[in-house]
Amino acid sequence: MKVAVVGCGLIGRSWSMVFARSGHDVTVFDLDEPALGRARGQIEASLRDLADKGLLHREEVERVAKRITLTPSLADSVSQADYVQESVPERLDIKRELFVELDRSAPEHCILASSTSGFPASTFTRDLSGRHRCLVAHPVNPPHLIPLVELVPAPWTDAAIVDRTQAIMRDAGQSPVVVRREIQGFVLNRLQGAVLAEAFRLVKEGVCGAKEVDATVRDGLARRWVFMGPFETIDLNAPEGVADYCQRYGGMYYELQQQTEPLAWEETLIRSIAEELSKTLGDRERAQRSAERDGRLAQVARFVRDLQ
Amino acid sequence: MKVAVVGCGLIGRSWSMVFARSGHDVTVFDLDEPALGRARGQIEASLRDLADKGLLHREEVERVAKRITLTPSLADSVSQADYVQESVPERLDIKRELFVELDRSAPEHCILASSTSGFPASTFTRDLSGRHRCLVAHPVNPPHLIPLVELVPAPWTDAAIVDRTQAIMRDAGQSPVVVRREIQGFVLNRLQGAVLAEAFRLVKEGVCGAKEVDATVRDGLARRWVFMGPFETIDLNAPEGVADYCQRYGGMYYELQQQTEPLAWEETLIRSIAEELSKTLGDRERAQRSAERDGRLAQVARFVRDLQ
Repeated sequence: MKVAVVGCGLIGRSWSMVFARSGHDVTVFDLDEPALGRARGQIEASLRDLADKGLLHREEVERVAKRITLTPSLADSVSQADYVQESVPERLDIKRELFVELDRSAPEHCILASSTSGFPASTFTRDLSGRHRCLVAHPVNPPHLIPLVELVPAPWTDAAIVDRTQAIMRDAGQSPVVVRREIQGFVLNRLQGAVLAEAFRLVKEGVCGAKEVDATVRDGLARRWVFMGPFETIDLNAPEGVADYCQRYGGMYYELQQQTEPLAWEETLIRSIAEELSKTLGDRERAQRSAERDGRLAQVARFVRDLQ
Repeated sequence: MKVAVVGCGLIGRSWSMVFARSGHDVTVFDLDEPALGRARGQIEASLRDLADKGLLHREEVERVAKRITLTPSLADSVSQADYVQESVPERLDIKRELFVELDRSAPEHCILASSTSGFPASTFTRDLSGRHRCLVAHPVNPPHLIPLVELVPAPWTDAAIVDRTQAIMRDAGQSPVVVRREIQGFVLNRLQGAVLAEAFRLVKEGVCGAKEVDATVRDGLARRWVFMGPFETIDLNAPEGVADYCQRYGGMYYELQQQTEPLAWEETLIRSIAEELSKTLGDRERAQRSAERDGRLAQVARFVRDLQ
């Protein structure tokens, strides 16, 4: 299969590795030629990192890198493609114009997927003659280390396109979930938003600090969630399963919901959290911390792969 | 230090291992003599499991087991104790009576901590002369595999008692967080409740199934949360940190909160989720799945310990 990745930023480069390591030929397009010039070295460094972390055979590094072509020509990248993964900046006007181009340049059978986290596909594909082949395929950053991908069809997306995208993602080692209809935040950011809303509320009300919220999730809840989700978790947390759990605790959780008012995150609250975090997390540069995070994500990826 | 664990159920046995493996002498009390008879073998089997999983040196197994004494006499267990971890069934009348006994039998300096997940300490310690030394120390089950412990003082709990409990927990390898005041669900179940509320809502509204929620948390969000909490996560998800993140996405998250109404989990919804789960998770016995979960929790514990 021929894959075109549009955009050579962090997400585009990461997608190019996802598709190339599963054997596809990948063409990465970007308008920004200097960025394109740097991308080759960045991708090769990331592939070597994968090998260092035991996520790619060392002899594969070069082979995978060779499957990736970088080009400043959109037509070159897209005209032969079976699958396009758009990964340009989050601006609706850019996506709109680009999808007109993509729909014009890509072969008829080619799937056009967007990495957007914020814009439903209906907001930038409505007027395209090929809108039935467009959908959102929203990754968690970076997708070569985190497998989850949300597939969100527009109302006019063909079911067969969703199915094929799901198969392509599975085949590439990702974990695709189909979000049945367009909804703000899709599923991932709605779940993350629910946690954040409660987290900000707890800090605002002086119940605990940001550090305690982080420890509670990290050293408590996420220990199970990293290998089973919240539903599977509660299914094992009552003797007779999820229905039994709801019977026992549903009332309590309903009361908690009723105590909950929407809370806007105002300046003072944000500042106090930012100060607490900067104290806890120390003075290290954010770039260094991001690199450490990615190193740990790779370790988690390998751990989960080898989990018995 | 001498520790008394009151109750030899799953949680009590697990606590006995936590304290014994960090070098303390532990006396486990239970009224139920047959259960007490089985507990010795169960504890030894769990300690061998820890050794199998690389979480305890093999030569330590016997030494740790020897530090644990089982007794049907509350006085024997508590009268010499420096720290009591109550782990009896979740019934307020039982806790009330028991804490009267504990306050009468334990030495004056001894801390009286309850494993309760549901009852604030103020509901069962109000009338005790030693109420200043009582608090909740709520574990995640099982505490010998999951380090998080919520310490929740009653309004009359001495600050020094909270500090000492925190030090004892740290010393025992747990991750204690102090919840500054009594609040329904404490911190962990409020955060879990926020996720579950959104999860049930998504399924109810037909946005996705339970399987998709589980995959989104397991293969997406929890990949980061297992080594950094939600605040540290968002601090790295915008170029200038958490304040920058709130600037960019706070509006979206506020809108999501405003779209959110409390949702009672009614019969039909629960049944459809239970059916979906039983289809996905197959026919294996819940007991077998719990044992597998604990095996995986042990692997996660070791992974996190060795994480670089």
